[in-house]
Formats: sequence, structure tokens, C-alpha cells
Amino acid sequence: QIMLEKLGKSQRTVDSELEAQIEQLRETQRKYLSILRLTRAFSSHFQHVVVTQHALADSFADLAQKNPELQKEFTCNSETQRNLTKNGELLLNALNFFISSVNTLCNKTIDDTLLTIRQYETARIEFDAYRMDLENTKPELTPSAAALEETQRSYAQHKEQYEKLRSDVAVKMQFLDENRIKVMHKQLILLHNAIAAYFSGNAMALESTLKQFNIKLKSPNAVTGSWLEQ
Amino acid sequence: QIMLEKLGKSQRTVDSELEAQIEQLRETQRKYLSILRLTRAFSSHFQHVVVTQHALADSFADLAQKNPELQKEFTCNSETQRNLTKNGELLLNALNFFISSVNTLCNKTIDDTLLTIRQYETARIEFDAYRMDLENTKPELTPSAAALEETQRSYAQHKEQYEKLRSDVAVKMQFLDENRIKVMHKQLILLHNAIAAYFSGNAMALESTLKQFNIKLKSPNAVTGSWLEQ
Repeated sequence: QIMLEKLGKSQRTVDSELEAQIEQLRETQRKYLSILRLTRAFSSHFQHVVVTQHALADSFADLAQKNPELQKEFTCNSETQRNLTKNGELLLNALNFFISSVNTLCNKTIDDTLLTIRQYETARIEFDAYRMDLENTKPELTPSAAALEETQRSYAQHKEQYEKLRSDVAVKMQFLDENRIKVMHKQLILLHNAIAAYFSGNAMALESTLKQFNIKLKSPNAVTGSWLEQ
Repeated sequence: QIMLEKLGKSQRTVDSELEAQIEQLRETQRKYLSILRLTRAFSSHFQHVVVTQHALADSFADLAQKNPELQKEFTCNSETQRNLTKNGELLLNALNFFISSVNTLCNKTIDDTLLTIRQYETARIEFDAYRMDLENTKPELTPSAAALEETQRSYAQHKEQYEKLRSDVAVKMQFLDENRIKVMHKQLILLHNAIAAYFSGNAMALESTLKQFNIKLKSPNAVTGSWLEQ
């Protein structure tokens, strides 16, 4: 059937509104996956920054002891780096929460709908194949009434399956869209508030953002480690 | 002479105050090199963060267009990331100025004094060798007055060279110490002010810190690139 469609020898059944929505969904998934990739890179580079700041805080503190003539300057730098390390770990928790949620959205929730879409596309091809069969069957050339009936039954059966999956896809896409907007709205606000709080040195706002989003904190010393549970 | 000293068969000339200062200088160089290595790592990781933030700003702006239902949230995140990128580039300029100055201090200024110190240490060993020669020379066993005179002349010559280099080292270390304190005082204040300004979101303070230290700015788009001239 795919061959016949490509050769222009068969008309395909088209639901252009639904197909536009499907194309849009695939495009959205691609874009969100790109955000996910960038946020992961950001989190990874930022984690390296935090680890280096930790080491710098230690080195500066050591030099404050060893170089009494520059004690004030080294102490000042050591304390700043240590504070940044502490807040950096809070920001990493927020980043990892964002990453984990967007990952679930892209690679589980959207993928689940895309699976139904692939089943729908297969059903559409089968349906069109049986429809062609029926259209090409000339009653006067058909060997028996039974064979004609069989062709009609197959056609009806695949039509039903196609329509059922088309309706499934429409419903799933509707729910997915609502869910996607809800999740992304929450996550984008979290990301913005956490980033804005951290980069304005507002440790209290950062902590309250994490509390607001119910983010469980990892042990403050565990800079490296796995993603947060959602 | 080194062999004899190790075997305990020769006394070495010791200036314990100067040697303690030399040991201290080597220790200081090691510690500053470690700060240099960490600041370079910090700058490199931070540069990756800035590059990623740049890409995130673009992706969020694109999605603000494509997802009208989340336009506000995407725009907000895009603008925050774009601001951070701009200020991040200013901070990179400050970091690179710090790195370049501390690099000159460790690998040129301190190294120059350490070269004189190595010359002094060689002169000390030669001086001690000629001193041993003279001490072991028994006038009654010496073949000729000329040979004795030769030994004495060599001893006097190497004593003079040793004392000249000892005095050179003392003077150079004095100047180096003053220079080191001046440079590090300035650089540590720059580093602290730039980091504090950036991480409290104070773009104006960051810019005025850069002006105060006469740091020439690289073109704002050139995130990657070479060190600043000093």
C-alpha cells in the first residue's frame, strides 16, 4: 500500500487537522529535547564550577593562614566562594528537578502518545489497502458471493480499527496538551525563580523556591550524584 | 662536595634565616600555582556555563514563538539567561585578568628570583669545596708556596662570589615580597569584587570593578578567546 501511494496509484485517507497536530507534537518533542539537552549541559558545567569553588574556598582559607600579610584578602575570597558553593548546591537541586520532570514529559508522556500515533498510522495504511481491494473488486468478476462478502467484512473491520485509533489519538493528544502545558508552566517558573534567586545572591528566595516545589534536598556535601526523585 | 656533605665528611655553610625564607618562597609559589590552576579550571567551566546559557536563551526565545500558550514563561527564562550571558562575559574578563596577573607573578617574577637562588646554592657548594681544600692543606706537606697561595686565592675568590650571590638573593627576595604582596592584594580585591558583584546580580558594580582595574573588554560575543593583555 505504501508503495502504491508513493507511485500515485492509490489515494490515501487524510485527516489533515489531526496530521497537522501530530506534526506539531513531534516538533514540540524535538524542541523540548533540545532544551533538556542544554539544561543537562548547563547542570553538568555548573556542577564543575561548584566543585572548583569548593576547592578554591579551601585553598584561600589555607593561604589566609600561611600569608598573614594578605589574611584579610584571602579570608574574604574564601568566605565568598564557600557561600557560593552552598547556594550552588541548592541551584543544582532545582536544575535536576527541572531536568527530571522535562525528561519524564519528553521521554515517557509524549512517547506514549507517539506510540498510539504510530499504531494509528499503521491502521490507516491497512485500512486504505482494504479499501482499495474493495474498490477494485468488480462484482461481475468475483468468483463467489462468499469472497465478496469476505472482502467487505475485512474492509469494515479495518475501517472500525482505523476510526477507533483515530479517536484514541485525538483524545490522547488533547490530554497530553493539557498535561504538557501544566508541567512546563510549573517547571519554567521553578527554573526561572531558582536561577533568578541564585544569580542575584538571594539565598533565602532560592531556599523558598525549592520548598515551594517540594524539592527534597540531597545532602549538602554530595555535589556529584544522581538525579533527584521527582 | 655534595657527596661529602651527604656522607657527613664535610660541614656545609648554613645561613639558616635565608634558607628558611627560600623554603617559604618555594612553598608560596606552590600554593599560588595551585590557586592559578583552580582559577583556570573555574574560568573554563564558567565559560562553558555562559556558552550554554547563550544557547538556552535562544532556545527559550524560539519556543516563546512556537508555544503561544507558554509564551510568558519561555520569554521570562530567555531574558534571564540572556542577561546572565552578558554579565558572565564581564566576569570572564575579570577572571582572565586575575589569571594573567597571577601567572606573571608565579611563572616570571618568582621564577626569576628562584634562578638567582639556584645560582647562590651552586656558589655555596663551590665555596664549601674550596674551603675544605684549604682546611685540608697542611703547610708542611705542601710542595710549594705557590701552590698554597693558589689554593688560598681560589678560596677567597669563591668566598667573594658566594657572599655576593647571598646578598643578591636577600635583596631580590625583599623586593619580590613587596611586589608579591602588592600584586596579590590588588588581584584578590578584584577577584572578590567581581565575583561578589556577578553573583549578586549587580551588573553595574561588576562593570565599575572592571573599569577600576582598567580591564579592557573583549568584544561581547567573543566568549572563547585568548587571555586579556595586562
